[in-house]
Amino acid sequence: MEQKSSKLLQKLSRLRREHKGLINLMPLQTGGMLTEAAREALAEFGDGYSVCDFCEGSLCNVTNPPIREFVQELLPHFLGCEVATITHGAREAKFMVMHSLARPGDSILVDANRHYTTFVAAERVGLSIIEVPNSGHPEFRVDVNEYATLIKQHAPKLILLTYPDGNYGNLPDARRLGEIAQEYNVPYILNGAYAVGRMPISMVETGADFIIGSGHKSMASAGPVGVLGMKKKWEQIVLRKSGRHANKDIELLGCSVRGVPLMTLMASFPFVKERVAHWNEQVSKAQWFSAELEKLGFTQLGERPHRHDLLHFDAPELYEISKRVREKGYFLYKELKERGIWGPQPGLARSFKLSTFAADRQQLGLVIDSFKAILSKYS
Amino acid sequence: MEQKSSKLLQKLSRLRREHKGLINLMPLQTGGMLTEAAREALAEFGDGYSVCDFCEGSLCNVTNPPIREFVQELLPHFLGCEVATITHGAREAKFMVMHSLARPGDSILVDANRHYTTFVAAERVGLSIIEVPNSGHPEFRVDVNEYATLIKQHAPKLILLTYPDGNYGNLPDARRLGEIAQEYNVPYILNGAYAVGRMPISMVETGADFIIGSGHKSMASAGPVGVLGMKKKWEQIVLRKSGRHANKDIELLGCSVRGVPLMTLMASFPFVKERVAHWNEQVSKAQWFSAELEKLGFTQLGERPHRHDLLHFDAPELYEISKRVREKGYFLYKELKERGIWGPQPGLARSFKLSTFAADRQQLGLVIDSFKAILSKYS
Repeated sequence: MEQKSSKLLQKLSRLRREHKGLINLMPLQTGGMLTEAAREALAEFGDGYSVCDFCEGSLCNVTNPPIREFVQELLPHFLGCEVATITHGAREAKFMVMHSLARPGDSILVDANRHYTTFVAAERVGLSIIEVPNSGHPEFRVDVNEYATLIKQHAPKLILLTYPDGNYGNLPDARRLGEIAQEYNVPYILNGAYAVGRMPISMVETGADFIIGSGHKSMASAGPVGVLGMKKKWEQIVLRKSGRHANKDIELLGCSVRGVPLMTLMASFPFVKERVAHWNEQVSKAQWFSAELEKLGFTQLGERPHRHDLLHFDAPELYEISKRVREKGYFLYKELKERGIWGPQPGLARSFKLSTFAADRQQLGLVIDSFKAILSKYS
Repeated sequence: MEQKSSKLLQKLSRLRREHKGLINLMPLQTGGMLTEAAREALAEFGDGYSVCDFCEGSLCNVTNPPIREFVQELLPHFLGCEVATITHGAREAKFMVMHSLARPGDSILVDANRHYTTFVAAERVGLSIIEVPNSGHPEFRVDVNEYATLIKQHAPKLILLTYPDGNYGNLPDARRLGEIAQEYNVPYILNGAYAVGRMPISMVETGADFIIGSGHKSMASAGPVGVLGMKKKWEQIVLRKSGRHANKDIELLGCSVRGVPLMTLMASFPFVKERVAHWNEQVSKAQWFSAELEKLGFTQLGERPHRHDLLHFDAPELYEISKRVREKGYFLYKELKERGIWGPQPGLARSFKLSTFAADRQQLGLVIDSFKAILSKYS
């Protein structure tokens, strides 16, 4: 035990990441790679609570570093909302909205493609969760018109749409759902963890009441950090203050990300703001890549033509291979890694998910060639 | 507006910290300064979600980096508890325990020296908060025997003790409160945000049900990250899993600190484990420093003799000066900064808080001389 523990202590003092420097196609990671400015901020504000040097009681009001200006001026404009704040991440933003607007036993209506954290956040509040189904294999589309039917049946306190979802990269009709939300007067949460920071998106244009983004997923930030935008009318409810400590937000427990992930979010913001203007290039790159992989016998799931860099492929050939090799489902991970590529979840081979967001066409060409080589190696 | 916004964007891409390299006496910061190993981990795992390379569904079960071993083996031993987990910080740990064990309208009994986040976390759950008073100026002692009286009156669902509190650095009798908690069978939360990682502390020895620590405050970590330890009997309640997603903790929304602050906590842990063994030296250093400042006419508040590096001084002379100088309460901050010292909250001068934890005796000697020089400059 002593010896084991001392070996572990040694390991801790030299933590290294295996996948550094590889072509990164991991859907969770391609939007969260730091900019150079963020790397500098990381070193500068690494020490615990160093963002709080000039705090006068509230993180979002700190002026040096310029958190207040970022939160009050840049973020609302970027999100197309009236009021914005900082959260620990998208899931924590979902929880705080649900916890503020609904009570245990109330219902919430969510799309069937929702992230698991949408479900867990609602569970944590004690909500009854109703799912708007998707169209099933292979497109898994969510028709937002079905929200109307279910709103009439269940009178939910809240509705939520995942835009896009993390499994298929589908972009349902968020604007149409905005009209439905208004018609039935139900507050509408737009979970844009894979949209905000990647593609143009505006809360006001979709007619949502809340918009949620993830720093580590899509805003070139260290994990974890998120953003939450809302209509002014919700500020008094979601950002309500403590009865005893008048400048402290109850739902943020005073302050949320009191540390370096927020600094990386801010440092990367100018770059992120610029990159969303080039979203069309990302979409055409994803479509080209998807078409090339389909030529190899894989089938792209989700919407076609695809409008997002998150791609999910059925891969029966890889699955057949995995059944007869020693490494089982890990063979794909190993083969790709040997070729300098990191992306599909280790261990999975029946289908796999990739994101083309961080790789350029030349790198993606190498990925395509690698899949070709792997298939021919085992055929 | 355009011009203002472009200036702000420029500022964001070059975020710098003013207080780098100064002698740091800021109570919030002295226990959170990174080790060299943590700085390396910061660079290594800076990219968003890079700790999730080998995730199989739950942060605390990741084996590479060795999060599982850290959480299951090292942490419980370090905290003197049976089960441990990772949180966004001490306040989030308090909220998750309160949210799991109590319902809106229930009561919680806390010490009057509690951090504001204890109050706000209880408010967020909807609890009725009862405070065990302190003895007032100048010692502000909490007599834990008063918990017994108030437990009989209010039948609280939970009791909480702040050990030490962040205002005076007082260490109330946590063990005696453990006996009281057992006698009345009330779950007992020990908030050790300024203890865990600084001084020896063991949940089982105090008889608490929960122990809470803060990475950025006292475990040489980037912010924000915390630890929560508990008795095995609470695991099924506080770490209950989702009904739909069986490996996801409801109170952690699946995972808590899915990012680099956790990597710094782990990388610093061997150093932190070692430093708590030298706590006696910290206490005698603090007592010496306090005695020296009292010779200058300041009065140390809180317990005497003092048993913690958090020190709070009444400073009527500084207050008199602040009333007649142009910088008002900021003159002390400015004078100390010019001398390479950072610590007392900018703007405060009637009393000030310092921590001697990160400075050595030579540096503290310089601090004492600086206070002398400042007093004589303005006298």
